[in-house]
Amino acid sequence: MKAFMNEDFLLTNETACTLFHSFAENMPIYDYHNHLDAKEIYEDKHYENLTQVWLGGDHYKWRAMRAYGIQEEKITGQAKPYEKYLAWVQTLENAMGNPLYHWSHLELQRYFGIQEPLTSRNCKEVWEICNKKLQEAEFSVQGLLKMQKVKVLCTTNDPAEDLFYHQKLREEGCEIQVLPTFRPDGAMDLCNPCYEEYLKQLEQLTGKAITSVETLVQALSERLDYFVEEGGCRISDHSLEERVYLPCTAEEAEAIFGKRGTHELIQEEVLKFKSFLLVKLGALYSKKNIAMQLHIGAMRNNSSRMLETLGVNKGFDSMDDISFAREISAFLNQLDKEDKLPKTILYCLNPKDYDMLAAVGANFQCAPYRGKIQFGPAWWFCDHRDGMEQQLRAVANQGLLSVFVGMLTDSRSFLSFPRHEYFRRILCNLVGTWVEEGEFPSDIQYLERFIKNICYNNIEKYLE
Amino acid sequence: MKAFMNEDFLLTNETACTLFHSFAENMPIYDYHNHLDAKEIYEDKHYENLTQVWLGGDHYKWRAMRAYGIQEEKITGQAKPYEKYLAWVQTLENAMGNPLYHWSHLELQRYFGIQEPLTSRNCKEVWEICNKKLQEAEFSVQGLLKMQKVKVLCTTNDPAEDLFYHQKLREEGCEIQVLPTFRPDGAMDLCNPCYEEYLKQLEQLTGKAITSVETLVQALSERLDYFVEEGGCRISDHSLEERVYLPCTAEEAEAIFGKRGTHELIQEEVLKFKSFLLVKLGALYSKKNIAMQLHIGAMRNNSSRMLETLGVNKGFDSMDDISFAREISAFLNQLDKEDKLPKTILYCLNPKDYDMLAAVGANFQCAPYRGKIQFGPAWWFCDHRDGMEQQLRAVANQGLLSVFVGMLTDSRSFLSFPRHEYFRRILCNLVGTWVEEGEFPSDIQYLERFIKNICYNNIEKYLE
Amino acid sequence: MKAFMNEDFLLTNETACTLFHSFAENMPIYDYHNHLDAKEIYEDKHYENLTQVWLGGDHYKWRAMRAYGIQEEKITGQAKPYEKYLAWVQTLENAMGNPLYHWSHLELQRYFGIQEPLTSRNCKEVWEICNKKLQEAEFSVQGLLKMQKVKVLCTTNDPAEDLFYHQKLREEGCEIQVLPTFRPDGAMDLCNPCYEEYLKQLEQLTGKAITSVETLVQALSERLDYFVEEGGCRISDHSLEERVYLPCTAEEAEAIFGKRGTHELIQEEVLKFKSFLLVKLGALYSKKNIAMQLHIGAMRNNSSRMLETLGVNKGFDSMDDISFAREISAFLNQLDKEDKLPKTILYCLNPKDYDMLAAVGANFQCAPYRGKIQFGPAWWFCDHRDGMEQQLRAVANQGLLSVFVGMLTDSRSFLSFPRHEYFRRILCNLVGTWVEEGEFPSDIQYLERFIKNICYNNIEKYLE
Repeated sequence: MKAFMNEDFLLTNETACTLFHSFAENMPIYDYHNHLDAKEIYEDKHYENLTQVWLGGDHYKWRAMRAYGIQEEKITGQAKPYEKYLAWVQTLENAMGNPLYHWSHLELQRYFGIQEPLTSRNCKEVWEICNKKLQEAEFSVQGLLKMQKVKVLCTTNDPAEDLFYHQKLREEGCEIQVLPTFRPDGAMDLCNPCYEEYLKQLEQLTGKAITSVETLVQALSERLDYFVEEGGCRISDHSLEERVYLPCTAEEAEAIFGKRGTHELIQEEVLKFKSFLLVKLGALYSKKNIAMQLHIGAMRNNSSRMLETLGVNKGFDSMDDISFAREISAFLNQLDKEDKLPKTILYCLNPKDYDMLAAVGANFQCAPYRGKIQFGPAWWFCDHRDGMEQQLRAVANQGLLSVFVGMLTDSRSFLSFPRHEYFRRILCNLVGTWVEEGEFPSDIQYLERFIKNICYNNIEKYLE
Repeated sequence: MKAFMNEDFLLTNETACTLFHSFAENMPIYDYHNHLDAKEIYEDKHYENLTQVWLGGDHYKWRAMRAYGIQEEKITGQAKPYEKYLAWVQTLENAMGNPLYHWSHLELQRYFGIQEPLTSRNCKEVWEICNKKLQEAEFSVQGLLKMQKVKVLCTTNDPAEDLFYHQKLREEGCEIQVLPTFRPDGAMDLCNPCYEEYLKQLEQLTGKAITSVETLVQALSERLDYFVEEGGCRISDHSLEERVYLPCTAEEAEAIFGKRGTHELIQEEVLKFKSFLLVKLGALYSKKNIAMQLHIGAMRNNSSRMLETLGVNKGFDSMDDISFAREISAFLNQLDKEDKLPKTILYCLNPKDYDMLAAVGANFQCAPYRGKIQFGPAWWFCDHRDGMEQQLRAVANQGLLSVFVGMLTDSRSFLSFPRHEYFRRILCNLVGTWVEEGEFPSDIQYLERFIKNICYNNIEKYLE
Repeated sequence: MKAFMNEDFLLTNETACTLFHSFAENMPIYDYHNHLDAKEIYEDKHYENLTQVWLGGDHYKWRAMRAYGIQEEKITGQAKPYEKYLAWVQTLENAMGNPLYHWSHLELQRYFGIQEPLTSRNCKEVWEICNKKLQEAEFSVQGLLKMQKVKVLCTTNDPAEDLFYHQKLREEGCEIQVLPTFRPDGAMDLCNPCYEEYLKQLEQLTGKAITSVETLVQALSERLDYFVEEGGCRISDHSLEERVYLPCTAEEAEAIFGKRGTHELIQEEVLKFKSFLLVKLGALYSKKNIAMQLHIGAMRNNSSRMLETLGVNKGFDSMDDISFAREISAFLNQLDKEDKLPKTILYCLNPKDYDMLAAVGANFQCAPYRGKIQFGPAWWFCDHRDGMEQQLRAVANQGLLSVFVGMLTDSRSFLSFPRHEYFRRILCNLVGTWVEEGEFPSDIQYLERFIKNICYNNIEKYLE
């Protein structure tokens, strides 16, 4: 029997161990998609206690706690930090098989040096050790990132953001590159009651009136330039939900835009408007060499009761089961046929779509890029060892794993970076097993390049 | 090489063996969903021969026989019992990889002590041994249940049933608790030619006129009380097919109900009516602390020819491939937002939906229940080792396996209880492998609790 | 560590090795679906170089090259053969985990005796060895087929083809039976600008006017007779895309047929027309004992830009994600209820549909056939070790693996036959593992029959 989560955790053979320990383990991290706050990085804050840093905004953990029957009071409510922590420990020790079990223990191991499994028996001691360490100089936010060798990270930002802290971090020569991601979901959200206000914000920032879709696109283009010039932005992001794409002419888009704020808009028009903007933005990304991320198939805010009580992103989202092969293909083709398709990373949330999406992306691969169209890593509800391995196999079966851009955290927590280690172990084990089984030559120089590329070099080159 | 289906069948490591033999093997059975007949249990009948008990109503076996090219005469027709048995043996020895192969041999081993694989060579001998045993006192229906340590079983019953035999069993102090399940599919089946007659039955039973949806719900509520008081009912069941949910107001429901028996009803109206009733019933279940089972996605009676010849439930059903994430979410939310969502067990028939359904259920987890919303065990066409393992992994990846309510037979056969053993072996092997691989601590006391809970304690507590 | 792709490649235990080497390895090949050209077989041509035979028409390889960033010039363009070959080698050595990696090395091993992995380092040498061998007598097209023990192969042919080369091959007593497959997709393609011309061709061939759907069916029936009598045809094929089936009366079909060439046809009508023809043809197949293949769910020509430049079948297709359980069931039922359902092989392109399709087919199994309705082998984008194993498991879980008709190449390349070996290794490993784990008896005589049947005997019997 293997010891609990030891140095060879998830590595089932010698080649896998070699690949991980010799090549993967010490590679730096390029976290190209997360939801961290540049302000917190700039301010380099210290967390007061384990509850704050570990449970503060982590809706994955909250979800598990609810499944275990914990009262909301101890999850997002007014309970004391230690009570919340205890409730979490109770949940965690009953979370066998859930990725949180591994993630949490990797976090205890890597940041705090705690090797024991966390249980109701040792939780008081762990609480004290961790809280003490959190006060040490190197446990500041930047310290936590450096411990995990984070070299570059891409936060998620609205086009209307001023990127003040991104600029500050740059000016002051922060070792970690903190780059903004251009995520204009707000500009597409025609039915949002705050949409007019949002347009006004864009008008103020660009100094030009937004009177049409054309001028809106112009404003977004200016903001994108700003993101690139002022923040070093290399990547954009969009969430596509319920439907993916419906062709729309400029005339239609203007007409729909004109109807905003009325109650006349039908669902199809809203989709058309979004599709039109997405095509325009895609062309801009292509022109400006910005990669485009499409996150497809979230189903958000399923519980009205909890949405009202707690707001968004509190653990009440899940995966949809739409069919979108023809829509995503039509969208990519719309850009490709005019030679305006940017580098694109396609993510789906439902694993039933893995093969389909990996295959549809491959229809638009094109020189001179290696892996221009990427099938993005396992995401959110799929971010566990089964999901990650399944995603890697889909990439390999439908295309070239060797050019894959690898892992990201998609996280809101500064403690979440060992997920890269988790991914790397799974990757090394998969490849190591293939080599051990004689499915691929045991060419150690090649394997070193292969592993290091997926850990870091591919994404760096991709976003150059 | 491991011996054929020996004591360590499906157990691939030492921890798995320990978990199964020390903890799982001897736990009693709480079979919370099946299609057994309380009358047969009460009458404690003896089967005449192996064909009767093994092949009498088992459409799984019939399906396999048809695939092997056996004439219907020898499946559901007039052939002699031994001829039918021979045809089954021929099929079985060619059923490698099908769960029937394992189920059938577990049944031969556990009930009849036959360890040899059944083939055309030894089938005569097996026939004689089994038939002889079937005449022994302990091979009565109740005897068969006791052999497998069945403590509680929930049959499936229409609200119009009188539960005569359930009451009898209770009165006479049967060791096995035989509880009815409230399954009001008939009350929702507006287009059934027998619907009026069905309403009349309910009227007679409740002594009140059913003149509206409101009075129908009232009648069902009374029947539910009857099921609880007279039968000890703790659980309900619904089959949702083709579509899952469409919101419907009381006014709409009454209007649709008024159109019954005419040819004016459109499919959407029928769905609305069902949805309305389902919401009303869900609220009743919540009030009366009855768990709600939703079996989603069967596609029934695919062969018109065989439906006409043989009727329903003869092996001509299969799985659908509908998308229903938004509908099931809207239904659960409809109840949840008024705090009327009962304990719910969600089943899907198509494995493509496993992750989706496990994740959507988790949006409605809520204290004080542990695992209020359950993702139900692999069902019907998924009830094989691959399907069971996949279901367990989905439960673990999307929630907490530790609070899972475990296995049921869903069966029409008194010989089918070794399927619990099959499930337990798969469960112990999965968990044992995780422990052996260092993915979970080897804390034997915890593991004992964990395994015993999933085998029996969780469902007992869930349905308390 | 196992040596790279040695004799026990993909075989992980002793029983698996025995099954493969003793039973599977030397069985002949019955390739019942491919896209080879009878003319090339008849002419028994020699390929000039490895690029021609290996990369000439292989859109799988082209797709991988595009993913690696190779310029189209070196894929389908005017680059010199050696340049193209070099570009392919570069891609191949970076294709770890893709089936092309294994297929290509099996091809190098089996045809050319090259055991080393192909890399940029040894590629010049390999080029010379292979090109030299290609000039040897036994490396003619027929020679290549014989090397792989191909006994029967079924090409894919339009009803309007004259089968000149099929007849020639037959007359001249070619050892390899080259049989045509009846694929009338062209006759259903009402919206094709060449449809009128196509009808004229059929009129000329049959000598009768096609003035109605009825006369069209009559013409197709005559062509089918011709295929059977002149070519020995035993099997048909249809590609069902986007939608599968919509019931259609004869009157509707005639009305739709009457509208051809106008712009009035709507999508639903086109589907209805196809469905009507498919039912008529299915009945003909049943009457004439021809098996019917249905390939469901391709999504073709996704890149308009490349369709314009290169035409069809150039590597810009992928899998769809339609839901079609109810449609395929209704179609099979339509034929079955009038006792006109032929032997049918159902293929789906998206693995999410494996269990569904395997289960829906099983509703129509019927004596006296063993496995009348087949769930066809992993196809196109699923034709890798994961997909093949998943397909075999679906067959076993939902029906009887023992009656499965096994593998085909679906290929356009004369070098692709080691894919049968690939399949056989995966099959033997799966079965061998079951036996080693005690899941099936180690009855070597039975296992011999079982393996040989799936490799060759089942399909031969099925198409008798």
